[in-house]
Amino acid sequence: MNGENFTLCGKMVAPSYVRQGSQARRGHEQLIRRLLEQGKCPEEGWSESTVELFLNELAVMDSNNFLGNCGVGEREGRVASSLVARRYYRLIHGIGRSGDIAAVQPKAAGSSLLNKLTNSVVLDILKISGVRSVASCFVVPMATGMSLTLCFLTLRHRRPRAQYIIWPRIDQKSCFKSMITAGFEPVVVENVLEGDELRTDLEAVERKIEELGAENVLCVHSTTSCFAPRVPDRLEELAATCAKHEIPHIVNNAYGVQSSKCMHLIQQGARVGRIDAFVQSLDKNFMVPVGGAIIAGFDESFVQEISKMYPGRASASPSLDVLITLLTLGASGYKKYLSERKEIYSFLAQELKTLASAHGERLLHTPHNPISLAMSLDGLQASSDQAVTQLGSMLFTRQVSGARVIPLGREQVVNGHTFRGFMSHAESYPCPYLNAASAIGITREDVTLCMKRLDRCLRTLKKDGGAARSCSTGPDVDQEAPDEE
Amino acid sequence: MNGENFTLCGKMVAPSYVRQGSQARRGHEQLIRRLLEQGKCPEEGWSESTVELFLNELAVMDSNNFLGNCGVGEREGRVASSLVARRYYRLIHGIGRSGDIAAVQPKAAGSSLLNKLTNSVVLDILKISGVRSVASCFVVPMATGMSLTLCFLTLRHRRPRAQYIIWPRIDQKSCFKSMITAGFEPVVVENVLEGDELRTDLEAVERKIEELGAENVLCVHSTTSCFAPRVPDRLEELAATCAKHEIPHIVNNAYGVQSSKCMHLIQQGARVGRIDAFVQSLDKNFMVPVGGAIIAGFDESFVQEISKMYPGRASASPSLDVLITLLTLGASGYKKYLSERKEIYSFLAQELKTLASAHGERLLHTPHNPISLAMSLDGLQASSDQAVTQLGSMLFTRQVSGARVIPLGREQVVNGHTFRGFMSHAESYPCPYLNAASAIGITREDVTLCMKRLDRCLRTLKKDGGAARSCSTGPDVDQEAPDEE
Amino acid sequence: MNGENFTLCGKMVAPSYVRQGSQARRGHEQLIRRLLEQGKCPEEGWSESTVELFLNELAVMDSNNFLGNCGVGEREGRVASSLVARRYYRLIHGIGRSGDIAAVQPKAAGSSLLNKLTNSVVLDILKISGVRSVASCFVVPMATGMSLTLCFLTLRHRRPRAQYIIWPRIDQKSCFKSMITAGFEPVVVENVLEGDELRTDLEAVERKIEELGAENVLCVHSTTSCFAPRVPDRLEELAATCAKHEIPHIVNNAYGVQSSKCMHLIQQGARVGRIDAFVQSLDKNFMVPVGGAIIAGFDESFVQEISKMYPGRASASPSLDVLITLLTLGASGYKKYLSERKEIYSFLAQELKTLASAHGERLLHTPHNPISLAMSLDGLQASSDQAVTQLGSMLFTRQVSGARVIPLGREQVVNGHTFRGFMSHAESYPCPYLNAASAIGITREDVTLCMKRLDRCLRTLKKDGGAARSCSTGPDVDQEAPDEE
Amino acid sequence: MNGENFTLCGKMVAPSYVRQGSQARRGHEQLIRRLLEQGKCPEEGWSESTVELFLNELAVMDSNNFLGNCGVGEREGRVASSLVARRYYRLIHGIGRSGDIAAVQPKAAGSSLLNKLTNSVVLDILKISGVRSVASCFVVPMATGMSLTLCFLTLRHRRPRAQYIIWPRIDQKSCFKSMITAGFEPVVVENVLEGDELRTDLEAVERKIEELGAENVLCVHSTTSCFAPRVPDRLEELAATCAKHEIPHIVNNAYGVQSSKCMHLIQQGARVGRIDAFVQSLDKNFMVPVGGAIIAGFDESFVQEISKMYPGRASASPSLDVLITLLTLGASGYKKYLSERKEIYSFLAQELKTLASAHGERLLHTPHNPISLAMSLDGLQASSDQAVTQLGSMLFTRQVSGARVIPLGREQVVNGHTFRGFMSHAESYPCPYLNAASAIGITREDVTLCMKRLDRCLRTLKKDGGAARSCSTGPDVDQEAPDEE
Repeated sequence: MNGENFTLCGKMVAPSYVRQGSQARRGHEQLIRRLLEQGKCPEEGWSESTVELFLNELAVMDSNNFLGNCGVGEREGRVASSLVARRYYRLIHGIGRSGDIAAVQPKAAGSSLLNKLTNSVVLDILKISGVRSVASCFVVPMATGMSLTLCFLTLRHRRPRAQYIIWPRIDQKSCFKSMITAGFEPVVVENVLEGDELRTDLEAVERKIEELGAENVLCVHSTTSCFAPRVPDRLEELAATCAKHEIPHIVNNAYGVQSSKCMHLIQQGARVGRIDAFVQSLDKNFMVPVGGAIIAGFDESFVQEISKMYPGRASASPSLDVLITLLTLGASGYKKYLSERKEIYSFLAQELKTLASAHGERLLHTPHNPISLAMSLDGLQASSDQAVTQLGSMLFTRQVSGARVIPLGREQVVNGHTFRGFMSHAESYPCPYLNAASAIGITREDVTLCMKRLDRCLRTLKKDGGAARSCSTGPDVDQEAPDEE
Repeated sequence: MNGENFTLCGKMVAPSYVRQGSQARRGHEQLIRRLLEQGKCPEEGWSESTVELFLNELAVMDSNNFLGNCGVGEREGRVASSLVARRYYRLIHGIGRSGDIAAVQPKAAGSSLLNKLTNSVVLDILKISGVRSVASCFVVPMATGMSLTLCFLTLRHRRPRAQYIIWPRIDQKSCFKSMITAGFEPVVVENVLEGDELRTDLEAVERKIEELGAENVLCVHSTTSCFAPRVPDRLEELAATCAKHEIPHIVNNAYGVQSSKCMHLIQQGARVGRIDAFVQSLDKNFMVPVGGAIIAGFDESFVQEISKMYPGRASASPSLDVLITLLTLGASGYKKYLSERKEIYSFLAQELKTLASAHGERLLHTPHNPISLAMSLDGLQASSDQAVTQLGSMLFTRQVSGARVIPLGREQVVNGHTFRGFMSHAESYPCPYLNAASAIGITREDVTLCMKRLDRCLRTLKKDGGAARSCSTGPDVDQEAPDEE
Repeated sequence: MNGENFTLCGKMVAPSYVRQGSQARRGHEQLIRRLLEQGKCPEEGWSESTVELFLNELAVMDSNNFLGNCGVGEREGRVASSLVARRYYRLIHGIGRSGDIAAVQPKAAGSSLLNKLTNSVVLDILKISGVRSVASCFVVPMATGMSLTLCFLTLRHRRPRAQYIIWPRIDQKSCFKSMITAGFEPVVVENVLEGDELRTDLEAVERKIEELGAENVLCVHSTTSCFAPRVPDRLEELAATCAKHEIPHIVNNAYGVQSSKCMHLIQQGARVGRIDAFVQSLDKNFMVPVGGAIIAGFDESFVQEISKMYPGRASASPSLDVLITLLTLGASGYKKYLSERKEIYSFLAQELKTLASAHGERLLHTPHNPISLAMSLDGLQASSDQAVTQLGSMLFTRQVSGARVIPLGREQVVNGHTFRGFMSHAESYPCPYLNAASAIGITREDVTLCMKRLDRCLRTLKKDGGAARSCSTGPDVDQEAPDEE
Repeated sequence: MNGENFTLCGKMVAPSYVRQGSQARRGHEQLIRRLLEQGKCPEEGWSESTVELFLNELAVMDSNNFLGNCGVGEREGRVASSLVARRYYRLIHGIGRSGDIAAVQPKAAGSSLLNKLTNSVVLDILKISGVRSVASCFVVPMATGMSLTLCFLTLRHRRPRAQYIIWPRIDQKSCFKSMITAGFEPVVVENVLEGDELRTDLEAVERKIEELGAENVLCVHSTTSCFAPRVPDRLEELAATCAKHEIPHIVNNAYGVQSSKCMHLIQQGARVGRIDAFVQSLDKNFMVPVGGAIIAGFDESFVQEISKMYPGRASASPSLDVLITLLTLGASGYKKYLSERKEIYSFLAQELKTLASAHGERLLHTPHNPISLAMSLDGLQASSDQAVTQLGSMLFTRQVSGARVIPLGREQVVNGHTFRGFMSHAESYPCPYLNAASAIGITREDVTLCMKRLDRCLRTLKKDGGAARSCSTGPDVDQEAPDEE
C-alpha cells in the first residue's frame, strides 16, 4: 500500500492505528531493502509473511501480471491452471534468456530479480559454509550430474583437442555418466586402501596425466562427499597437480556444502592449486525438492562462460525453492542445521559402534569422511551367502531409508565400462558393509529408530542362519539399489 | 477413506448419507482408475478437487511422507520450508534415477507414477494434436535448447566421427547455441525467398551433405514454428533427404504442438522419410511456467537412449505443472484452446491487414506460417532511420508484449558465427517489419488492444516525422531484444 | 515495494524494466485506491493477484504480524497452525470489539479495514440489486435465523412490553425458531390461496394487530424469497400497515438479493411504508460458504443499534469470503450471475412445464415467485400412497439435490406449535408437488440433468405402480428433509 | 486410492514399491480410524499431510463435490471464488440444520462429520484440561459474549418469569452486554477486597437472591479467567448457593481452559453444587482466529437444548480451525503449550516484581489469579496526573500489545448502567496499575521485550516528570482501550 492509500485507510479507521500499520509495513520493507542492498542471506530468518509479501511484489513486476498487458508473442507467461500459477506465486517467465541463464528478461523484471538474488544469496551461503574465496556461482535447474556435463561441455571450447577426463573412482552412476554424456572418455583411477579408508591414488593420477599427455586431458574430475569407506579426494594435492600441468579441475561437491570439512578442502585446493568449478546439489544441501544444482567457481569469467553455455531459458522452480528456504531459515537457521548435523554424526558413529560390537562387527575407521559411516558385515556374510542382500531388503520394507548394504564382488557395466566390486569404490574391498549417513536435517529419532530396526533385522537373520525371510519380503522385493544422486 | 473408516463414519452420521459420500468418492476413484488404465488424457477435464485428491494420494506413496520412516541416507526428501513442501504437494523426490530420467525410484513410488503418467498423458496429447504415429516421449525439466543439446549428445555416441550439424537458418539464439554447447559445428543454410516467405533451400542442404560427407554430418536440425516471414521448414523433403543419406534428423518443434500444420509436417516427415526426434517446449504449448520440454520420437529405443543420457535425477516441477494442466483441461479443453487459437489467427491477420493498409504498409503474404504474421514497415523506415527501433521501444512501454520489430541490416556475432540481417532469418530481407503471433491462450482482447496501441504509436511516429520520443522512453529504455525462446 | 527498494532493484536489473514493474504495481495500487476512496464494488472484477496483494497488505497492518511486536495480553492473535493462519491470510483478530461488531480494533487496523470495506461494498451491491435507498448494513457471522433473532432482541429494548411477532406463515424452521429463541410468541397468519399461489392474508394481519393491541406486537416478520407455490409476502401493503400502527417491520429476505423482484418489493415497502431491517443470507446470495448474513436497513441509527447489540468480537471469515468474492467478480460479474439466473429460471419453467404435461401433471401457476417453481404430483399420488415420498428418496440417491417433494397432510410440532400441512405453507394445499428453483450459480446443465433424472424416476415409479424400490433405496434412506436455510 | 487403483499402479512402477506406498497410506488411514472410533484428540499430533488428506476425504463426501450432482435448490454449496473454496478445503455447507446446530445434513456428510468430530475432540480436551466430568459440548461460531446470550435465551424457556441475572462484577463489556442483549437485567454484585485481591462477595450474592426471590433470578453468571487484581470467582461456593436455591449457574470461562486452576474450579463447582453450562473462547484457548466459542455442560440434555436454540445453519470455519489445530498439535502438543504457559507465568511474575521494585512500585499479591498479574503505578501517578494514561499510549506505539494501564476513577456508562472505577472491577481500587498476562502461546521473548520497553517508558516518564511526549504519540493516538474479549 502506498502513502496515498494509507491516508485513505486513515479515513476509515483511526489514523493512529493506520500509522502503526504503515510503520509495521516499513519493517518488512526494511528487511527487503537490506536484502536488495547487500545481496546476502539475512542473519535471522524472515517470517513466512515477509517471504510471501516479497514474492508477491516480485510477481507484480512480471509482464504476465500487468493489468493492462496485451500479448501477441509466442511466450507470454500465460497459465491455464490457477493451481499451477499459485505454485509459482505467479512468477511464470522462468530465469535467463536464450543467450545466458543469468541474463535479465525485459518482460520479467521480477523473475530476473529472483534469479539474481538467489544466486547472490547462495554465494553468500557458500562463503559462510567455508569457501570464503568463491567468486561467483549460479543456480541451475538441473541435478548435479547434468550440471557437471555442462561444465565439461564448456571446457571443450577451451581445450578442443582434449578427450579424457581423469576421475578418481567413485561408484555413483551419474558422476560417471556426466562425462559420458558430455562425450568424453573417463579415465578411472582406482583408490588406494589406507587402513579402512579408500583414498585418492595421487601417484596414479600423475602417471595417467603423463601417459595421456596433459593437453589431451580435459580436466581432473574429483569428488568430496561420498559413501564411507571412501573418503573425500585429496583435493589440495590434486589441485596442485592440476596447476602444475595446467589442467582444469572440476570438483563434484555433491552434498559437501553441509560439511565444513568438504568446504575446507575446496577452499584449500583453490588456495594452493587449481579448482575451476565445483558443483553441488541443491536438494541434498538445502533440503529442497530434487532438481537443482549450484555451479560455483573462483574465476567469475569462467563461471559466466558456463552460464552462457546453457542454451535457452530455464525453470525458476529450484531458485524459488532455495530462496524461500534460505530467507526463511536465515544464515543462523542454516548454521544451526549444520551444527546439529555434526552432532548427530558423532551420535550416529557412537550408536553404530555399540551396535556393531554387539553383533560381532565393527565400525570401519574412516575419520576423513565427515558424513557417511560404514559398519562391517563380515559375520553376517559368514552366516549365509544371501544374508547381506537380504538385510538390504529387510531394511527397505521396514521403512529404513538410505541405509545401503554393500555385498562383495558385484560387477556392473556402465556405458561400456566394467566396474568390479561395484558400489564399494574398489575392485575388492576387504569386507561387505552397511552405510549410514548423518546428512542435513537428520534427527536423533532417525538414528534411534534406525538402530532399533537394524538390530532387530540382524538378530532375525542370525537366528535363522540366513534362512530368514520376513513374510513381507516376497521375491519381487528388490533391494533398494544403491542410492545414487 | 477405506471401507472400514466409512463404516465408522456411518456410526456418527446417518449411514445412508455416508454411503452417498462413499459413492461420490468412488466417482473420483473411477476417474483415477481410467487414467491409470489407459494412460491417456481424460476427454473431460477433472475438477480441481479430483486433481488435488490424486496428487495427495501420490504423495502419500513417497517415503518422505511415510509416517514411520527413518532416514539415514544423504537424500531423504527432507524439506526445511513448509511453503516449499506445499508447492510440490509434498512430492519431493523428483523424477528419474541416476541411470535414467524415466526410471522408477524405490523410495518414491508416487513421484515415479507422476513421471510415468505425465509422459503417457503427454504422448496422448501429441497424438491428438496430429503426430499420430509418435512412439514415445518424455518430459525433461530443461528448456528446448538444452533438450536439443541432449539429443545431439546422444547422437554423438552413434556417430562418433561426425562433427557437423546442418541447420536451415533461423535467427533464434538458443537453437544455434544448442549445437555449439553440444560441441558441434553448425552449418548454416540460408533460406530462399519465395514471394514474401523465407523457405528451406533444399538444394543447398543436399549440396552441403555431399560437400561434407554424410558420415561427418551428425544430423540435420530443422525447425517448424518460427517467426514470419520465415515459414516452417520443408520437413517432408528434408526427412526424405535424411533417409536417403542415412543421416539423423532432429526437429525443433518449439511451439508447434499448438498448430495442426506443424504437427502434420512432422507426421508426414516421419512417414515419408526420417525424423529421429522432435523437441517441443512445455510452456509455449501448454501454458505452464518456463522450464520444461518434451523429447519425442518414432523409435522407442532411441527415445529411451536419450532419456538414459540424462545423468542423475531431475526436477518434477515441469511434469507436475503439465500433468495438473492437462488433467484440469482434459483433451476437450486443450482442443478448445487449439481451435480458439486458430480462429484468432484469422482475426489477427484480418486486423493487421486493415491496420497495415491504413498506414500504407502491407501484411506480408506468408500462408505457410500458421502462427506468426508480419507487417511491413517500409513507410515508417522511410520517415526516419530510427523510427523502426523506436516503435519497438514504444510498444514495450505501452505494455504490448511479444510484438517484435525487425529493422534492416542488423549484424550479430553468436559464438563466433556472424549473422548478417540478424533476426530476419536472411542476410537481406527486402523490408523491415513487425511480428505478431496468435499463440495458444491469446484472446480477442489481446488483439484488439494491440491494434489500438500499435495504431496510436504509428500515428505518433509519423506525425513527429520520426523525431517522436514519448517521454516515458528515456535513453535507458532498450528496445526489448528479440523474443527468443 | 517502496520507492527506495525499486531503486535498489534497478541496480540489479535494468532500471527501465524495473520502472515498468513499478508502474505495473501502481496499477494494482490504483484499484485499491479507488476501492478505499469510493467504498464500492469495483465495476470490473480484480485479478486474484490484486486480491491477494490487497489482503496481504491488510494483514501486515495487524499487530500479530508486526515484526517487533511483543504480546502480554490474553488475546494476541497467536495461531498455532500455519494451515489455519493461511486460511485467514493471517488476519486473525476477527471483526468488531466488545462494544460493537462494527467497531475498529486498535490492535488490528487491517482487520478493521476489512470489516468496514466489506460492509461498504456489500451496501453498494444491495443498492445495485435494487434497494437503492438502503442506508446502512453490516455483515454478521451468523446465519439468517440467528441474525433475525438479533434484530428481535434489539427491538425488545425499544418495545419492552411487546411479546408477539406477527408472522405470515412460511414453513421453514429457522424462521420460526428465530422468534422463539428471542423469547417471543409467534402469531402465525395462514396464507390465502389465490389461483395456485399462496399469498399474504393482509386482512388477517390487520385483524391480529387489532386483536393483540399494536403496543403488544414487537413487529411484523415478513418473508420475500420462498418455495412456490407460496410467493413473496405483499411487502408494500404490510409496510403500510406497520406504518399505520407504528409497528416495526423486519423482513426475512433470505435469498432475495438475487432477484430483482424481491429487492423491488423491499424498496417499495420502504418507500410507501415501514421496513426497519431486512436480513439476507450471504451464502445463498453470494455463493460463499454457509455462515454469514447481512443485516440492512433504511435508518442508519437503527442498524447501528443492532450492531451494538452483538456482544463481543466476531469471526472475520464470512466477511473475508464475501469481500474476496465481490472483488473477484466485480459488479459486472455479479450482475452477469443475476441475469443468467433469470434466464435459467425461464428455461427451468419451460422444461418443467413440458415434463409435467408429459407425465399428466402440471406446472403450478406462480408468477409472483421469481425463483422457485412447483410441479403437481397428483397423478403420482393417485398411483400409490408412498410414491410421492419415494420420489424424494430416489432423487436424493440419484444426486439431484435441492428438489423437494411435498406430500399432503404432514403434521409437525415445532417448539410447541403444531403446523398442519407442514412444508406446504398451508394447512391443506390442494395437491402434492415437487419444487425446483433457479438460484444464483445454477447452470443449464443442472436443469437438463435434473429433468432427465426426474423423468426417469417418474417413469420407474409409474411402471411399478408405486411398488418401485430402487435397490439403492434401502429402508434407512430418509428422504432429504425439507431444505431449510 | 483404492485397492484396484493400487494394483494398476503396480503395473506402471514395481509392485513392491507400490505395496510400500499402499502400506504407508494405511498408516494414515489408521490414524483416521482411531479418531473416528474414539472421537478423541490423538495423543501425538498428525502431520499436515494426514490432516489435509483427511479434510480432502471429508470434502469429497459433500454433495457440492459430487461429480455427477445437479442442484436445483436455493442452497447448493456453490462457490464463485476458488480462493474461497480453497479456504474451506471445499467444505462449503457449514454445520447444523435449521432445527439444531449439532444436526446432521443430508447433503453434507463430510461437513456433518467435521462438526461431530470437532465437538467430540474438543470435549476430550476439556476433560484433559481438568473438567473430567463434563458431559457434552459444542463449538458455536460466535464469540463468548453471544454464546452466553444464547445460554440465557435458552434458560428463559425454563424460567419464563425470571428477569434478573446475578453477576459478580467484572469490567468487561461483552460479559455485561451478553445479559442485556438477551433481555435481562444484570444485578451487579461488587467484589470485596482481600489483601490486593478482588474476590466474590458471597454474602452479597445470597442477599440479592433473597431480596429478589429465587424464582425471579434467571441464573448466576460467574467468571473464572479475568484481569488481576480481580481473581476467579469462588465457584464452589457459588455453585453450592445455586444448588441450594435451585437457580441455574452459567460460568464465563473465557480463557480459562488454558489454566488448570480455572478448570479445577469448574470441576469442583459441578461436583459440590450446580453449574449448568460453562462457555469458553476458542481463539483465546486454542490459538485460532477470533470468532468461536465452546458451550459445555454436565447435563447432556441441557447442552442439547442450547444447541437446538440456535436457529439455522452456521459457519464451519471455527470448527475447522480448532480441529486442524488440535489434530496438528495432538493432546501432547496442547499439554506442552499449557505447561509452557505456566512456566512463563512464573517468569513474568518474577520479572515484573524485579522491575516494579526498581521503579518503586510493587507487584500486587494476587495468588488466586493464575494468568494475569498487576503492578502498581502509585509512583507514576504521583509524578503527574497524565502519566498513567500516557504510559498506555507509549506502550501501544512501542508495539507492546496486551499490557493494559488502569487509571483511577474512570467512570463509564454501559447500556444504562454506571460503572464507577471502570476497568478495575471495583468502585475505588486503592491504586492505579498495569496488567500483563501469561496466556497460551506466549514466549520468553515476549516477556523480555515487554520488560525492556516498559522499563524504558517508565524511565522516560519519570525523567520528564510526566511531561514526556514521545514524538510518535500525537494527540490522535488514543490509548488502546481495555482489551475486552
